[in-house]
Amino acid sequence: MEVFIEPIGRLMNEFSKLPGVGKKTAQRYAYRVINMTESEAHAFAEAILGVKRKVRFCKVCGNFTEEEVCEICKKRDKSVICVVKEPKDVIALEKVHEYKGVYHVLHGVIDPMNGVTPNDIRIKELLLRVNEGGVSEVIMATNPDVEGEATAMYLAKLLKPLGIKVTRISRGVPIGSELEYADEVTLARALLERKVL
Amino acid sequence: MEVFIEPIGRLMNEFSKLPGVGKKTAQRYAYRVINMTESEAHAFAEAILGVKRKVRFCKVCGNFTEEEVCEICKKRDKSVICVVKEPKDVIALEKVHEYKGVYHVLHGVIDPMNGVTPNDIRIKELLLRVNEGGVSEVIMATNPDVEGEATAMYLAKLLKPLGIKVTRISRGVPIGSELEYADEVTLARALLERKVL
Repeated sequence: MEVFIEPIGRLMNEFSKLPGVGKKTAQRYAYRVINMTESEAHAFAEAILGVKRKVRFCKVCGNFTEEEVCEICKKRDKSVICVVKEPKDVIALEKVHEYKGVYHVLHGVIDPMNGVTPNDIRIKELLLRVNEGGVSEVIMATNPDVEGEATAMYLAKLLKPLGIKVTRISRGVPIGSELEYADEVTLARALLERKVL
Repeated sequence: MEVFIEPIGRLMNEFSKLPGVGKKTAQRYAYRVINMTESEAHAFAEAILGVKRKVRFCKVCGNFTEEEVCEICKKRDKSVICVVKEPKDVIALEKVHEYKGVYHVLHGVIDPMNGVTPNDIRIKELLLRVNEGGVSEVIMATNPDVEGEATAMYLAKLLKPLGIKVTRISRGVPIGSELEYADEVTLARALLERKVL
């Protein structure tokens, strides 16, 4: 005899596809859904279908949008482009409320070990935007890991000959952290890129 | 400007209703859904609606079922009834593969502090089952907490006059644990209910 009846087992299986969700968590989620009202469950299902139906990529920057061109591309300073790996990086940067320019989402980084070449990410689109003119600075905000650094270097080499100022977000010890717990590579970088006070 | 576009914000809000899911986790889940194929998202939404549409309570034991009477009530030894608080307790006990009797899900425990009286849980239904005859033993498997113990005691008082053997699952130090880390109440109980070897 199966421990779970079919509809519950099926829903648990669906929840298990979410990142970090194991069997126990999937069971708790499924039980929560069972205890939802009919209309709550419908709202949930509708929200899932909603993102698939409504969310697409901005044809300019590649970020999530409901329209052809996203709100950020429509309203903000187009002279500065911040290059990121994924849409979630845009969210992270937007939360800072500091940046006033636009973005360019690469949808990946160059990673030859996993077969991702420059042609597989949105580099061509970035060059097109820059070639259209009006861009004074491109900020590389890819992750501070091997692939992120390599992609930033690669793009810098392509963009500098076009007379564009190419910058990279600073890397070093995180604010509020303790030196004792900083890893050696970060600490070495923090020393190397020390600033005159 | 909102950080999240509406469909993503809405889905995150829905995920936040699941137990233990905060904003960050909801965001990760939503991004996973965005990256699903159309048919995967449909299967997910369908599974949510499926449990609401198909899952109901067994009219005998109160456990989850797709039919009027659950598989356990149909096929198993009806002379022993194991009383539990919630359907998920049935799952926990079934995983042990030891128990061959049937269940009775109370859908709650007596908890006067939170306004739950004996009339609010499925006690009447349990008495009806016992009065129908053929029941030799009722096992109290409510949680070993204040409300669970009180409910077990209350039911024992009701059932014993009917000539039914009423038992309680044993409480003590968990198998595989270390005495050092057992809480005092558990340890006191383990001493009190010690068994002759």
